Amino acid sequence: MKVAILGAGAWGTALGVLLASKGIPTALLARRREHAEALRAQRENKDYLPGVALPAYLYPTHDPEEALSGAEFAVVALPSKALDTLKDLPRAPWYLSATKGLFFREGALLTPSQWVAALTGRPVAALSGPNHAEEVARFLPTASVVAGPEALARRAQEVFHSPTFRVYTSADLRGVELCGGLKNVLALAAGMVDGLRLGDNAKAALLTRGLREMVRFGTAQGGEEATFYGLAGLGDLLATAYSLHSRNRGAGERLVRGEALERLEDRGVVEGLYAVKALMAWRQRAGVELPIAEAVYRVAYEGLDPLKALSELMSREPKAEG
Amino acid sequence: MKVAILGAGAWGTALGVLLASKGIPTALLARRREHAEALRAQRENKDYLPGVALPAYLYPTHDPEEALSGAEFAVVALPSKALDTLKDLPRAPWYLSATKGLFFREGALLTPSQWVAALTGRPVAALSGPNHAEEVARFLPTASVVAGPEALARRAQEVFHSPTFRVYTSADLRGVELCGGLKNVLALAAGMVDGLRLGDNAKAALLTRGLREMVRFGTAQGGEEATFYGLAGLGDLLATAYSLHSRNRGAGERLVRGEALERLEDRGVVEGLYAVKALMAWRQRAGVELPIAEAVYRVAYEGLDPLKALSELMSREPKAEG
Repeated sequence: MKVAILGAGAWGTALGVLLASKGIPTALLARRREHAEALRAQRENKDYLPGVALPAYLYPTHDPEEALSGAEFAVVALPSKALDTLKDLPRAPWYLSATKGLFFREGALLTPSQWVAALTGRPVAALSGPNHAEEVARFLPTASVVAGPEALARRAQEVFHSPTFRVYTSADLRGVELCGGLKNVLALAAGMVDGLRLGDNAKAALLTRGLREMVRFGTAQGGEEATFYGLAGLGDLLATAYSLHSRNRGAGERLVRGEALERLEDRGVVEGLYAVKALMAWRQRAGVELPIAEAVYRVAYEGLDPLKALSELMSREPKAEG
Repeated sequence: MKVAILGAGAWGTALGVLLASKGIPTALLARRREHAEALRAQRENKDYLPGVALPAYLYPTHDPEEALSGAEFAVVALPSKALDTLKDLPRAPWYLSATKGLFFREGALLTPSQWVAALTGRPVAALSGPNHAEEVARFLPTASVVAGPEALARRAQEVFHSPTFRVYTSADLRGVELCGGLKNVLALAAGMVDGLRLGDNAKAALLTRGLREMVRFGTAQGGEEATFYGLAGLGDLLATAYSLHSRNRGAGERLVRGEALERLEDRGVVEGLYAVKALMAWRQRAGVELPIAEAVYRVAYEGLDPLKALSELMSREPKAEG
């Protein structure tokens, strides 16, 4: 067997390291020829995952034919805004989306697996959980969830499962992917609390309300409540909101310290900035309440003062909790 | 009106600062005469809450008669192991427990408010939430929950509520207090993950499972599920498990670094070490599963290797999440 990983950023590379370390031949598709050549020559992804040796069974390439030929399935590890490039690549039999994001397309809120399915016409499952690439690639222990059609989820579980990367299956594809989109928006908010130095109490209170916002919104959108309290929901939210690795949390912190929106992606894509746009575009149609997402949007795109935004959030809670 | 605060540790002092800053005459009862005298002379609690000026309306005293005379109610801010001293003090009309812990007494698992009620024969409500004293006393924003008989909860809300300390009421006294006991045990476990440097992913996964353990156990013990996902549950868990202020989290970290159990309380009481004992004593009767609490107990009291304990925890999860 062979697996193709589409995208040689930190997460694609980490998943490739994971598979190749199990002896699974894995192609790692880089967009740029020079990047693929550097990966092959240096056996390290110095740009996106420095300090991690690439195992022998990992084959970096920039040639889509070479990457996808004979692959049992393809792992999509592209930034959400680069998903459209999939339609120009050779087809894999099926896809495992490792991309987190939300899209507003033709009046609907789409998750990455829906968009991948629309672009490729093939079946798609999704992988999500508390999974910083920097830690997964160093075999620090964690767990993850694969959701989607049962046969695909079971197969992905079998392929990825290891003592340090435990994989659980779920039938709630919609819920798992909504979690992955929403948590990056909340991580931006958590980063703002950090940047304003409001303290551990305020951050904990914000995330408690944030999880409730995820549950309320996500269940209305077809996700199952238990998913939001599980690894792909609360687990990933915590890993993102409390980690120094997180670009989304870090971007929230940099925003309130006055850095320009344009500069926030100089260290990589900040998915929450796109997801919150999709949420706001969609919300105008659906008429739901998303107070924390709205605060993030107004701070990022409308110049609202973050301290004002957060104090409005704190003061709008009803007198009895619930 | 006047309020008496029993206990001049960090939390009692912070609550006193909060009330006195609102112009409410507040007595702060210290156990030792010299401590009360130092508080009065220095207008600062250098031992437990350094750097915070005591407002004029806060009266430190070591005389229980002086503290309790004319008080509308008493706030119990004692370590759980010191609650028994309440029976020797003059009675207040009612009590607000700000103590977090669990007790195994006469075959039952008791919360602090139950124990206070048994000792005093008076009505008791409880205050709980993501409330590090160091931040509350500096007026950093947070929120808290008061649970108990409705009239008392509403009165406590009215007395404590402020723009930076938002107070919500709850009828689920049992659930709120179970949260306060259980979260310290989970914070010990989170500290162990920190001490072993297992990473942000592993810590997020552990706390996700930990909250599920709290919900499963707590609802079986009479708490309401929503409480465990609210400020007193998830909120306090996050504030404790992710903060450098937390003695419980810190004690878990120090345990795995090889510090002796006896030394862990040199910076103050570690409530989780008592709560986990009560849980284990009680569990033998009740026959429930508490895998994380059991791992903490075995590491703290039976010398189990923490890395072994945590890897056992990671590997015992079922294949489908839920």
